[in-house]
Amino acid sequence: MSDDLFKSALSEREGVAQPPSVNPYWKKNQRKKKEKLPIEQMAERILLGDRTVLSQAITLVESISVEHTAMAQELIDKLLPYSGNSVRIGITGVPGVGKSTFIESFGKYVTGLGHKLAVLAIDPSSERSKGSILGDKTRMEELSTDPDAFIRPSPSGLTLGGVARKTREVITLCEAAGFDVIIVETVGVGQSETVVKSMVDFFLLLMLSGAGDELQGIKRGIMEMADAIVINKADGDNVDKANFAKSQYQAALRLFPPCESGWEVPVKTCSAIKKINIDAVWGMIEEYRNFTTGNGYFDHHRKQQSVKIFYDWMETTLVTIFFDNQKIKEEIDRLIPEIQNGTLSPYIAGNIILDQMKENGRK
Amino acid sequence: MSDDLFKSALSEREGVAQPPSVNPYWKKNQRKKKEKLPIEQMAERILLGDRTVLSQAITLVESISVEHTAMAQELIDKLLPYSGNSVRIGITGVPGVGKSTFIESFGKYVTGLGHKLAVLAIDPSSERSKGSILGDKTRMEELSTDPDAFIRPSPSGLTLGGVARKTREVITLCEAAGFDVIIVETVGVGQSETVVKSMVDFFLLLMLSGAGDELQGIKRGIMEMADAIVINKADGDNVDKANFAKSQYQAALRLFPPCESGWEVPVKTCSAIKKINIDAVWGMIEEYRNFTTGNGYFDHHRKQQSVKIFYDWMETTLVTIFFDNQKIKEEIDRLIPEIQNGTLSPYIAGNIILDQMKENGRK
Repeated sequence: MSDDLFKSALSEREGVAQPPSVNPYWKKNQRKKKEKLPIEQMAERILLGDRTVLSQAITLVESISVEHTAMAQELIDKLLPYSGNSVRIGITGVPGVGKSTFIESFGKYVTGLGHKLAVLAIDPSSERSKGSILGDKTRMEELSTDPDAFIRPSPSGLTLGGVARKTREVITLCEAAGFDVIIVETVGVGQSETVVKSMVDFFLLLMLSGAGDELQGIKRGIMEMADAIVINKADGDNVDKANFAKSQYQAALRLFPPCESGWEVPVKTCSAIKKINIDAVWGMIEEYRNFTTGNGYFDHHRKQQSVKIFYDWMETTLVTIFFDNQKIKEEIDRLIPEIQNGTLSPYIAGNIILDQMKENGRK
Repeated sequence: MSDDLFKSALSEREGVAQPPSVNPYWKKNQRKKKEKLPIEQMAERILLGDRTVLSQAITLVESISVEHTAMAQELIDKLLPYSGNSVRIGITGVPGVGKSTFIESFGKYVTGLGHKLAVLAIDPSSERSKGSILGDKTRMEELSTDPDAFIRPSPSGLTLGGVARKTREVITLCEAAGFDVIIVETVGVGQSETVVKSMVDFFLLLMLSGAGDELQGIKRGIMEMADAIVINKADGDNVDKANFAKSQYQAALRLFPPCESGWEVPVKTCSAIKKINIDAVWGMIEEYRNFTTGNGYFDHHRKQQSVKIFYDWMETTLVTIFFDNQKIKEEIDRLIPEIQNGTLSPYIAGNIILDQMKENGRK
């Protein structure tokens, strides 16, 4: 019942027309009540593992309305102390590497061990509508019907920074709901790997066995981020090729500087479709967790991530607020042609803008 | 005479003890006068090509005192309209590649053609004192006595950002003084290449002929920045190796995306010490200038550089001002442990800081 109320409160806030039968007086009261109560209730229900409420909470967190953001922050604040008890795994790889099949096989194996698994995606370029939930569930057919697995697609219509923030908050919600293995999947193009790397404990790079040019498809920088390389589709005729690729990657990895964690990046082969060596991949992640918990890096790394998020967000927000200011915009537009013509030094222009800002501040 | 006055004004401002014979009343007046007059005079003398005044002006620009910075800005502002008539060449390469010898041979060739050449250096790690002028002049013995060449070492005691800004301003001064070829040399480690790239028209990567592992020493990102690769020490027994290296680099360059300028990056061999092929390197730079002037990229690129400098400087300065604020520092120090413990979301912490900032602004 209260879920329905919450839903209607949400749609009201989003400006969706209300049914004409709703009494305006009641609506007003309900709204007032909903701004305080449901967050408390939602938090409780999430802590009990209620997946329906978890889904609603994620929708709330992903909303871009100012009012929802405030509510979402309140919810996150309540749940943060109950989050963190998970291993967060980032998975990337070029399209065609078999990411969905891998996550399906790996996920089923992990839930089979008694874990609760949440699968999230980061795809800032995605124009996917709500239909994508179906899309993601279709491509992971078995996992989507697994009562111990929870699949959520990337929020759409946001910048990469926006997706990053929302996904971090969704991780908090999922952990509070008792999910102890979190997979964050990225599409494997552009900047999204860096973002995923910044929110996970373990970053897994899926590769293909093939001939010679394996290193071409993926940027060196992404290989440098990986905590493990797993060569998929190592089955049938492909086994030899996969083993050859494995030795190539091992040689390439030797050229890289050692990881801060002290962990030596392993290269493994597996076949997601034939379910070969999936247990070894999980074993490796458990080994990483034990190793980095033992030497203190696991906690240290999470603390570093949080502080980095704080500073990154502060910097981006400061710069955005500044350049969004109408007066500053106009002044910059006035100065840019002079900067371009070389009649005004970019540094002097910068000081002009700063002086004006200070003057505005004094007014 | 006015130079001496200016010098004494400078040393006074830097807190250097004045000779006891100086009448305090006169000193006060002189100081007032010096804040306006010398800049006008300096600008005039620089435009006439006076190298002594140019050197003094560079010292003024490189000073970190607030008062000098204001004077330097006034000077730069006056000279900017007379700058820009040069080709700015960035030169990088690992230590041992023969940069000094190359610049010496190349520089002598260029001044022999009737050009006026300024050689600047970017070396943020440098702990060099004023003695370094001698050091730089010693390593370029012929060039340092060439009346058409002007050699100036990297300012010391500054961050990379600081060196970048000062060097851009020194370029302006040199161009105003009639130097029409500017070389900016970098030490070939870390971030300094990116900074040099951001202030030059043409970026030349010096490489060594050797066996096999030429690509190891230099980062891929630096190769991607280059407008030309020149393999030095191609003389005697080394000629074959140099030609082999040339074909290797040509193959490697084919893997890179095309330059925005439409220019195809050439690979050349030369011997700086034997003065072989130095003319071809200069010919290539002239060709580049004609090509990019023809298609409009030369001007477009300089305008882009200026606007980028403006935005980069604004962003860095905003962030620095913000995090230097004592109240904000204290508030952040208070929140960081909570962020690290995971009891406070980095985003909520960010909003707390912003709210406080707004409140302080209102007071």
